[in-house]
Amino acid sequence: MSVLGLGRMGSALATALVGEGYDVTVWNRTPKTLPGARSVATPEEAFETDVVVTCLSTYEVQQPLLSKNIKTLVNLTSGTPEQARATAEWARQHGVEYVDGVIMAVPQQIGTEQARILYSGQSTHHVLDAFGEPVHLGEDARLAALYDLALLGIMWSVFGGYLQAQALVQTAGVTPQQFTPLATDWLATVGTFLPEMGEQTAHRNYETEVSALDINVEGLRLLTRANEEQGLDVTVPQALHGLFQRAQSNGHGAHSIASVIEEIRK
Amino acid sequence: MSVLGLGRMGSALATALVGEGYDVTVWNRTPKTLPGARSVATPEEAFETDVVVTCLSTYEVQQPLLSKNIKTLVNLTSGTPEQARATAEWARQHGVEYVDGVIMAVPQQIGTEQARILYSGQSTHHVLDAFGEPVHLGEDARLAALYDLALLGIMWSVFGGYLQAQALVQTAGVTPQQFTPLATDWLATVGTFLPEMGEQTAHRNYETEVSALDINVEGLRLLTRANEEQGLDVTVPQALHGLFQRAQSNGHGAHSIASVIEEIRK
Repeated sequence: MSVLGLGRMGSALATALVGEGYDVTVWNRTPKTLPGARSVATPEEAFETDVVVTCLSTYEVQQPLLSKNIKTLVNLTSGTPEQARATAEWARQHGVEYVDGVIMAVPQQIGTEQARILYSGQSTHHVLDAFGEPVHLGEDARLAALYDLALLGIMWSVFGGYLQAQALVQTAGVTPQQFTPLATDWLATVGTFLPEMGEQTAHRNYETEVSALDINVEGLRLLTRANEEQGLDVTVPQALHGLFQRAQSNGHGAHSIASVIEEIRK
Repeated sequence: MSVLGLGRMGSALATALVGEGYDVTVWNRTPKTLPGARSVATPEEAFETDVVVTCLSTYEVQQPLLSKNIKTLVNLTSGTPEQARATAEWARQHGVEYVDGVIMAVPQQIGTEQARILYSGQSTHHVLDAFGEPVHLGEDARLAALYDLALLGIMWSVFGGYLQAQALVQTAGVTPQQFTPLATDWLATVGTFLPEMGEQTAHRNYETEVSALDINVEGLRLLTRANEEQGLDVTVPQALHGLFQRAQSNGHGAHSIASVIEEIRK
């Protein structure tokens, strides 16, 4: 069992394997040791083990390191669905068993039930059990990367939205301690709207009795203006306003916010 | 008691007042009736009542209608904090009692405990009890509008992020029914990071053992690229990538995501 890449996440993965009693080999570009594991100087030495887990910074770093000498590749390097597909194809051509996974957790959660490991591809591998709770998404190798980016995208949207909100209320002296409890309650409320929103995108039926896009475009205009009035950066509210406004211009003004997906799909 | 503006929300407010047994007068630009209420042809007729609740589409629509003949104005029209401040100042100069409120609920929730009514200003008014659960934010008249826009901004960010995510996974045939349960679970997880993030923005200490901005900027690059590869609109991921990247360029690469607020504050 080897791990290539000893950043925060790679180190947590190797440590979890050591903890499970595996014989673990590690390699890192900048030589690095890990308690209980054998460090090697070249990736080739790691390829002698039965399973190679990669957790590198990018596919661009990973690509030149891959070799047909790998028996089973458990690819946990983050990339696009297309990069995952191409790597699965390369693995198939070279007789390398291939699992493509993503870790929906922070390094501190590795080895606990809180770490959900999403994976896809034709192979499955018990090594993932050492890292957390594996969930198989399907045979299409792109799925793990696709879910990963989709879910992280939601996270970045929430963080960006929260930080913008916090910056805005702070202009009137409202502290994070005052605002955050309201923000987290509100986030939970907002989450309850997603299933209905999803249904609407599936049926492309955007009727609403609740809140039309028109009123939300006006709200985004006010949000952008309020941020401007306070001298704050408006990159994100302006982008959302632009996107929602284009959906409105394309005939969705009286429809629900879910209709914005038509503009995203183009 | 009168209500100016009989859109979805205004109608729900007037209906709640009728339900509480108040003598209710309503006015709408396009003449409209409401069961149990008296319709009048001009706003001036409504100003004879003790309390005037406004729920109009914009401040631009509301401004010309206001008159010093109003005794108590409960302003529920959405606007910026600056617009609220100016209206409070106008009210003070004209001896009009003034309450500035926002409704954190959909019309269907009006009159129930689920409808949180945030309000600010020097006056309070029991009329808000008929609409839901009032929360007084402070004497600064801007506060209600500020919280409103800040919280709605989080909502629009979540909706935009979710719709982008849904569009992305659908390119591999993943349905909303498959994806949404994961998305809502994930949203709850993401929410647990906000209190720590808020603390960091308060102390401007962005040390992290978990996830540095560098890795998130790289993730946003991949997200934008994956959306492009699938022919989707990238307005929102690109905006987030740009904002996070500027924070990275300004020396926050090894800091937590919370450091992005420094870029928003500029």
